[in-house]
Amino acid sequence: MKIEAVDFFYLSMPEVLDIGDGSQDALLVRIRAGGLEGWGECEASPLTSIASYVCPMSHSACKSLQSSLEGKNLDGIEDIYRISAAVHENSLDLLQADHTLSGIDIALWDLLGKKLQEPVYKLLGYKKAYPKLPYASQLFGDSPQETFHKAKKTAEAGFRAMKVGWGPFGKNGLRNDIDHLAAAREGMGPEAYLMIDAGTVWVENDEQARQRLPALAEANAYWFEEPFINGALESYKKLSESEPKIALAGGEGCNNFVQAQAMIGYAGLSFIQIDAGRIGGISVSKRVADLAQHRNITYVNHTFTSHLALSASLQSYAGIEKDMISEYPVELKMLAQEIAKEKIVPDSNGYIHVPEKPGLGITIDTQSLQKYIVDIEIKVNGKQIYYTPAF
Amino acid sequence: MKIEAVDFFYLSMPEVLDIGDGSQDALLVRIRAGGLEGWGECEASPLTSIASYVCPMSHSACKSLQSSLEGKNLDGIEDIYRISAAVHENSLDLLQADHTLSGIDIALWDLLGKKLQEPVYKLLGYKKAYPKLPYASQLFGDSPQETFHKAKKTAEAGFRAMKVGWGPFGKNGLRNDIDHLAAAREGMGPEAYLMIDAGTVWVENDEQARQRLPALAEANAYWFEEPFINGALESYKKLSESEPKIALAGGEGCNNFVQAQAMIGYAGLSFIQIDAGRIGGISVSKRVADLAQHRNITYVNHTFTSHLALSASLQSYAGIEKDMISEYPVELKMLAQEIAKEKIVPDSNGYIHVPEKPGLGITIDTQSLQKYIVDIEIKVNGKQIYYTPAF
Repeated sequence: MKIEAVDFFYLSMPEVLDIGDGSQDALLVRIRAGGLEGWGECEASPLTSIASYVCPMSHSACKSLQSSLEGKNLDGIEDIYRISAAVHENSLDLLQADHTLSGIDIALWDLLGKKLQEPVYKLLGYKKAYPKLPYASQLFGDSPQETFHKAKKTAEAGFRAMKVGWGPFGKNGLRNDIDHLAAAREGMGPEAYLMIDAGTVWVENDEQARQRLPALAEANAYWFEEPFINGALESYKKLSESEPKIALAGGEGCNNFVQAQAMIGYAGLSFIQIDAGRIGGISVSKRVADLAQHRNITYVNHTFTSHLALSASLQSYAGIEKDMISEYPVELKMLAQEIAKEKIVPDSNGYIHVPEKPGLGITIDTQSLQKYIVDIEIKVNGKQIYYTPAF
Repeated sequence: MKIEAVDFFYLSMPEVLDIGDGSQDALLVRIRAGGLEGWGECEASPLTSIASYVCPMSHSACKSLQSSLEGKNLDGIEDIYRISAAVHENSLDLLQADHTLSGIDIALWDLLGKKLQEPVYKLLGYKKAYPKLPYASQLFGDSPQETFHKAKKTAEAGFRAMKVGWGPFGKNGLRNDIDHLAAAREGMGPEAYLMIDAGTVWVENDEQARQRLPALAEANAYWFEEPFINGALESYKKLSESEPKIALAGGEGCNNFVQAQAMIGYAGLSFIQIDAGRIGGISVSKRVADLAQHRNITYVNHTFTSHLALSASLQSYAGIEKDMISEYPVELKMLAQEIAKEKIVPDSNGYIHVPEKPGLGITIDTQSLQKYIVDIEIKVNGKQIYYTPAF
């Protein structure tokens, strides 16, 4: 079947707050072919990604993504890989391209799954999807007291794992961080998995991160995530060799395979965290999951937005039984909650399951989303090259 | 002085060809403060970069670049580093940000140099700018015969070094590549430096690249550039250890410091090539040049566009005497030629010199450029958030 339309929908909460909550806006991608439609989501700046889809050509290696999609066929898995490779070649020097490709690639897998009547994970070669243990992913409270209450509420809601991150962590001194860590552990109780996310606050400064290790050990942190920016291989490596030993997690900032390969190879990580909405979609995510298996590093999804994004990010490691931890957003803004009609919710044992319906198994609630639409119009030399399509 | 205006100008040739010539369009940045103006150039998709400058906030780590620039002060070097750090923090999840920052950072250095009446390289701490030996950088001919004639013409023009790249190389089989390499060497004569640029054609496939090594050795290639995509550390490393040994060059695709650090640390490169218009400007370039010195790897500018971009890319290693090779574009489209009133041209000994005038020492020929202006208009929910300003 021929790809007939690739449409972008920029959605936003009426007010976007200056906090680390990525669920305040969204960029959905709808691809139509053969009477079917597939949906994807970019974890990216919506306007910038749209511009990268329609921008005029600069030269042979700096073309819009549109040029790699228009009129292409989608009949099998190889077509998706071919489109992904074409984007990487034609948009080599277009930096935003990988973020935009991510939503497109996800939508292509969803569409192909619907055509072939298989869930995406089966198209990826997995025979079975194993249950995942969701960790309730959320921001630190503004004070240790608030962090304590968030943790307590999370434990009471039945979660056996929690991650807290961003917010004040790393910004108000060591003592404050120690208090937040102790508060999180106290709130969750001694048995729970507790993950800590520093949100790249120390950039490359491994000494600052090292100062937190004793308190992380004291709180029995399951992992310490993103003390540094993505790709700061030397800082990660040094920290991974410091005492007391705390398992490191990172990788959400990877926007292509070789960046993830470098993080796996040189950063001393125990967990590689991949966002299908950033790394180039499910195609690239699966390749990282394969490498992680081979290198004996645990693969974890990165998801802080909708259940469409959650389903997309779970597919790539659905069939890896031992990698059972899964990021599960619990503080979604209404917009992100309303994107998917079907919710992926923990079962009575506290596990979540990858949808078994064709594609990603998620239906988009276009009616509810109307109110969040941000209309975009782009003109080049007076000619309209983009406007928001109808849902 | 307070930053009063940051303006972007998208320029394009009337027709953009589907070839690897990056001089067919340009994105200039003009920053005004204290009655002065500084100019920079992004080596990037113009529309996408403009969108990243004005896009609405998605969350605290995905903000427009505008939010890190507006109302900021520029009185000394530290202000530039502060702005660079702010962009990296506020636009962490905005992938295009580094390309957009590049032109901004270059313009800030130009502006500060004009204010302090010093060439940028002196602000960077160099006492002196050493002459550089320019290599005439151009595309392969469509046929080996054409490559021979281009090389011959280059030698006759007095260049002692040449690079050919992209075009058909790697796309028409090993035999054709061998013929192109022999033709390039024959045209330039036995004494000249001859560099070969594969333009990432083998992506990650080191075996394909390895097959070219004997012919590269036969042609006495000074370096072999970008056989793989940026960041493909393992492929580069394997190739660097293969026989016959050919020095590898790469890095133009780096869009931040840690990517260049990884290429220097793990890719087995002999030359690190940095484009100030992509890596985040002169600030980041200088940091890479310092690291290259420390790690005993040769730093080379990457420049395939205007003499504004050339001046910007030379500043960061102007004071490193031993790193004397410099990329010098010789096939500029008229647009790129007309950007700078002052040209950086080889002296009677064949060397080029970093301008000694304040800032980058380049005046923008706004009058000549009027005809290349591409008008951009972006509306969000009916409100115009960007339109092309007046020159």
